[in-house]
Parts: sequence; C-alpha cells; structure tokens
Amino acid sequence: MTTVQDYIYTLGQQARQASKALARANTGTKNKALLAMAEVIDQQRDTLKRANQRDLDAGKAKGLEPSMLDRLELTDTRIDAMIEGLHQVAALADPVGGITDLAFRPSGIQVGKMRVPLGVIGIIYESRPNVTVEAASLCIKSGNAVILRGGSEAMESNQALAACIQAGLDQAQLPNTVVQVIETTDREAVGALITMNEFVDVIVPRGGKSLIERVSRDARVPVIKHLDGICHVYIDDDADAAKAIPIAINAKTHRYGVCNAMETLLVATSRAQELLPLLAQAYAEKGVELRGCERTQVVISCAAATESDWSTEYLAPILAIKVVDGLDAAIEHINHFSSQHTDSIVTENYSRGRRFITEVDSASVMINASTRFADGFEYGLGAEIGISTDKIHARGPVGLEGLTSQKYVVLGDGQIRE
Amino acid sequence: MTTVQDYIYTLGQQARQASKALARANTGTKNKALLAMAEVIDQQRDTLKRANQRDLDAGKAKGLEPSMLDRLELTDTRIDAMIEGLHQVAALADPVGGITDLAFRPSGIQVGKMRVPLGVIGIIYESRPNVTVEAASLCIKSGNAVILRGGSEAMESNQALAACIQAGLDQAQLPNTVVQVIETTDREAVGALITMNEFVDVIVPRGGKSLIERVSRDARVPVIKHLDGICHVYIDDDADAAKAIPIAINAKTHRYGVCNAMETLLVATSRAQELLPLLAQAYAEKGVELRGCERTQVVISCAAATESDWSTEYLAPILAIKVVDGLDAAIEHINHFSSQHTDSIVTENYSRGRRFITEVDSASVMINASTRFADGFEYGLGAEIGISTDKIHARGPVGLEGLTSQKYVVLGDGQIRE
Repeated sequence: MTTVQDYIYTLGQQARQASKALARANTGTKNKALLAMAEVIDQQRDTLKRANQRDLDAGKAKGLEPSMLDRLELTDTRIDAMIEGLHQVAALADPVGGITDLAFRPSGIQVGKMRVPLGVIGIIYESRPNVTVEAASLCIKSGNAVILRGGSEAMESNQALAACIQAGLDQAQLPNTVVQVIETTDREAVGALITMNEFVDVIVPRGGKSLIERVSRDARVPVIKHLDGICHVYIDDDADAAKAIPIAINAKTHRYGVCNAMETLLVATSRAQELLPLLAQAYAEKGVELRGCERTQVVISCAAATESDWSTEYLAPILAIKVVDGLDAAIEHINHFSSQHTDSIVTENYSRGRRFITEVDSASVMINASTRFADGFEYGLGAEIGISTDKIHARGPVGLEGLTSQKYVVLGDGQIRE
Repeated sequence: MTTVQDYIYTLGQQARQASKALARANTGTKNKALLAMAEVIDQQRDTLKRANQRDLDAGKAKGLEPSMLDRLELTDTRIDAMIEGLHQVAALADPVGGITDLAFRPSGIQVGKMRVPLGVIGIIYESRPNVTVEAASLCIKSGNAVILRGGSEAMESNQALAACIQAGLDQAQLPNTVVQVIETTDREAVGALITMNEFVDVIVPRGGKSLIERVSRDARVPVIKHLDGICHVYIDDDADAAKAIPIAINAKTHRYGVCNAMETLLVATSRAQELLPLLAQAYAEKGVELRGCERTQVVISCAAATESDWSTEYLAPILAIKVVDGLDAAIEHINHFSSQHTDSIVTENYSRGRRFITEVDSASVMINASTRFADGFEYGLGAEIGISTDKIHARGPVGLEGLTSQKYVVLGDGQIRE
C-alpha cells in the first residue's frame, strides 16, 4: 500500500471506531455538539476568514474562474448561514432509534423495525466550504461518522472548519474522529476512500457530472447519487392554462443551473395551437432559447430540436419542446428520455393524472406542480444531503432518514421455534 | 461481445421491456398469472417429472452427492408444495402502488411516497428446482421481471418449470419474458448478468458462500445477500433460567445447517457456574460438540475454543462458548465477531435489554427469543427471497417489500416555487 492508501485506511479505521460511540450517543449529546460547533464557528470568524483568504489568494494566483472563487469565499453572510444551518439541524427530529410496525406474531414474539445509523459516510464534494459544515451536521444528527473530501482549492478553509467542528465534538465529549477531513489533495485518496468497504458504508458525491461518473464507476461502496436532471413537464389535453403556463415558466426559469429545472416541455397536440404562442412569449421575456420539434415549429418560430436535445441537461436558459399525441406518447417519451429525476403532468383529468404518477418511473412524479419542488426542504425532510435517482435504498431527495437503515427488533418472552 | 454476452444482453433487454408491462399490471392480473401457473404445474406433473428424471440421471452419471440429488429431485410432495406456494403468494397483499405519509406542506403541495417495483431482478441459485417457481412468484407479485440462473444440474427441470410459468403469464396476458430462465450452463452468463446494470436492478444470489462471494466481488449491480450467519445468544446476569436454557438449546439444535442457528453462546460470569453444567448436559444429549473459553473449561469439560472459533459458522452440531464479564463484554464480542445477522440476549433486566437491542449492530436483535425466529415467515413478511446483512436497502429477511422501492408523489393545484 502507498502512503496515501495507508492514510485513508487509518481515517477509515478511526471513523468506524468513532461511529460506534456516536451510534450510542443520545439526541441531546448530538445536539449539544451541533450547537457547540455553531458557537465555535461564531467565535472563530476571523480565523476562518484568514484561512479562506489563503485559499482565495492561491485560487486567484492559479487563475480560477470568478464563479469558482465566488463559491469558495466565506463571507460573514455565509458564516451566518452555516451557524443558522447547525441550529436547524439540531432542531430536527432524531431519526435514530425510532421503532415502527411493532406487532405481535402468532408465535408470541413482537417484531418491529428500529432505525439505526448506516455507520460511516464518505462525502466527496467540490470547493464550497459551507458543504463541510452542512454535510458534517447531517451525518452527526443521523448518528454517522463521516470522512469529508472537499475540493483541493478549499483545503485551508475546510481544515479551519474541521477544527471548529472537532472542538464542538470535544465539548459534547464525542470522539473528534466522528468528523475527519482528508488533508491531502492527492486524487488517489478518493480512489482509496470509495473502495474501502470494510470502513465506509456509503459514498455521497456532490458536484459535477464528471466527478459523480468517476465515483460511480470506481466505487466498491454503495453510492447515493444522481447523474442528470432531465426533468419534464407534460401539459395534458385537460390542463388548466392558468396552472400550465406558470408551472412551465417556473420549472424552467426559477433557476437554470439546478437539477430539478425542466429541460423538456411536452404539450398535447390539442393544446399546442393555444398554449405554445403564450409560452413562447413568456419564455422570450425571460430570454429562454426554444428548440422545438417539427409540430412545435408549425405553431411558433424557434430553432429545430435534434434527437440529442431530448437527452440533454442544458442547465441553461434553453428549453426543448415537443408536441405529443397525448398521455401515452408523453409517458413513453419520459420513460425513454427522462433521467428518472422529476417529471410533472399538468391536468384536470383524474384518470390521466392517476396514470401519470403510476406509470412514470421517476424518483419524483407530480401533478400540477413545478418540478422545482423536488427538494428535501420542500418535501419536509428538513435537510438534504443529496438527491438519488437510483432505486436501491434512498430515492429522490435524501434527508436524515436516507442516512439510516432499519434493523429488526424481536421482543420475546422465552419463545423457541417449534 | 461473445455469443453468451449477446444472449444475456438480449434477455436483459427483453426483461426491461417486460418489466414495464408488469409494473402497469394490476393485482388481479398478477394473481391470475400465479394461479394459472399453479394449475399448469398441476397438469404438467408428468412432463415435469420426466424432465427432472433426465437431470437426475445425468447427475447420477456425473457422480453427484446423494444430498445434492435429493435437493434436485421433484417429487409429488414437492410439486404440491410449489402449487401451495403459488397460492400463498397470490394471497399476499400487493405492496405495489401503496402510498404512505401523504401530507400537506406549507407551499400547499401534498407529498407522499408510492411503493413501486425495482424493475428487473437477477436470481442466481443452486440446483433446487423449487426455487425457480418460488423466486419467480415473488418477483411477479412485487411487479418485477426476473432472469433466473439455476444450477446447471437442474437445467432440464428448470426449463420445464419455466414453460409452466410462461404458460401462466400467457393466460393472464402478461409478456412471457417477465420470467426468463438462462438456458446455458456457461459460467460467463453469470458474469454478464451481474454486470449488466442498464437492464438489471438487483441481484439475489442464493446458495453457498463461494457463490455469494464471487457474485458480490464481481457484481456491478447491487446485491441483496448475506455471507455468514454467525449468530450469538447472550445469557445475561438477570436471565431467567427457564427461558435461557430452552432458547440456547433451540437456537443451536433446532436445525444445524441454517444461517440463523446460534454459533457462539455467551454466558455472564455470574451465571456460568449454575447454567453451564445444565447446558452441557442438554447439548450432550443432542450430540453437540462444545468448544469453550478458559473460563468455560473451569466449569465444564469441553474442548478449548481457539480464536478462530469465534468467527466460524459451523453449520453443524458444534458450539463455541465464552464466559463474559457482563453486557459490555457481550456487546463488544458480538459487534466484533458477529456477521451482523441475528443476535439475542436472554435477560429480565429492562435496561440491559434496552441497551442490547440498541447497541448490537445486527440485522435482527432479539430479547428472550431464539435466533431461529429470524425468518420472513416468522416476521410476518409472508415470504422470503433471502436475508440481507447489508445496511443499504433491505436488511434482515427480505420479502416482497424488499423487492420494491419508493418514489415521491407530489399532488399540487398549480403550485410554483417562489
């Protein structure tokens, strides 16, 4: 083994050990640690900003893009948001230990399920230091130790934040190895982390598609992830125009760079003539470029959509539009081209709405709502560590519960199998 | 690609296509298929037994072990059991489509979770033809297409059973590619099946440890599995002897070759003097060989347990015994040596029972019950496709629900994100 592998292996061992202590900690202790972290971060603002300044200086010297420097920067507003975030996570209900479905069986045993932490989470993310605190807080609250691998450009900031987090753990008398930040920029560290299945129970990659693709391809540990957000809105024959137009505009234009933004709009033939001109005008006002199928181009003037447009996540003010014959064609298009993230139908028709949510095979299916609602906060999870488009384990927005598992609990009175 | 890979790829494509039709099928249609299969199997007894005889003849010619020939044989009793099993699965509640936790959010949307099939399941098993019908029935009921790879010694029997299954699917007007049996004994087929993640959503290996190890190591598709069943019973200081002795005897001797049998007995120091002689006598009557730690050997005469005994799944009339200082030592031993399958405490002490089920990190944790209860039927799942000792997705006995996932359903009235 190389030195880097040895180092990651040691972090893994320590995390596994720490996870056992954390799994035993009660809710009060975990909350005490979170609130202590908030206090230490508040006290250490100057230290944090000095460390961050070193990252910013190095980033400027390296010629980082302004948008990347912006994400890297720790302003007082962002520090306030971190502190507020810690308070919010402390206020969330603790999922750990909850027992559900406890019922008597004919043998006389009671069988139920107890929610328990997964153990050790590995989180790989880009150069946004606030993710360090947010990810750590969600892991702590759900009873999991965490190994964090942030972007190399944020190394100084992340280490300063890790010191605050560990001071908070100390105050609550939890092992400070509950949260460990990888202190090397060597990319081999990622390879070691995502294959170390004796010490890491799940990997959450947060960042661009190439990072997530690489992690998914090479991981030997389960990965909670989504690659694309190719989301659809289908305006049905029986759509209420007063709902369809705001939803279609909101789903595309509320924010462009997010995974739950609509990328393709499907419109039933019977409504194209009426709605497409109104939509085209509204999109034009927002500066959205339209790329339409042949039938769309008969009604409005726009660029021609090519086959590749149906499977492109633009993350930009660009929208593909297709006129479809009705619900069957819409579902077929979605189940073929959707990234199984979020898809919505606009309709007043009961049976078609019922069929859409049953037959569309995506992590979130909606009736008469903007795809932008696919979000842990909007769903009431209280927080979000990521979004999963896989079907195994967590699916859709992943909150505290997605970082837990359930074990069976059997309460007997001396029962034996006959 | 080789011919075998092409062949498996074609099965995968067909399964994915069939899974979409099956996901749309209602409960009545799925039950109709299951009951039709039962009828066809009943009518085709002679054909089934002739096909099975060809397998038995070939097996005898190859010099298969008598125990293996026994598992391979299709008797009328076993055919009756298959038919009965199909009726039982038809009678189970359909998990698909169930919506839970539907609640209003402040934005006015309603958010809930709908249970949906995983899609396509791959099942790899040894030469027990009854598994063909059992696995197919559970997959159909849970709305999943399935690709079955049985042991090569059962090839003729499995193909005859597949014909019955497909006749049943035909009668219910479901695509008969919902259930496909791999018709080659080439081992490359397994390698292709477990890496084909575009068409297969989960793999369930059922069989010996070497099969499961190989599948786990090479799979690129999630695997539902357990490798070992190193289960413990801990007799606590406050155990009721009238419960402790029957549980310790039952957990070891009810059946030896099963994963939920106890392999190591832990006894609190304060109870060793009293209970070990009684237990030793009872085990002697059953012909169980005891291997004890040094402190055990002070009380009863038995072989010395070596370090490797604590991590051995005997699957035989052999039991390791260790005297431990109390609950802390018991939990430490279990969390170190257990295969995280099933562990039980015998105690009348409320606080120690509470700590045991919280702190022991196994798929099933029990108080005052035999480990033999860790079973899908005993837990009320109605059926069992396997047992998982992993924490991601299903854990413990896996029934119909473990073959499903949940997607988010959002019901709105025109809501957009502000």
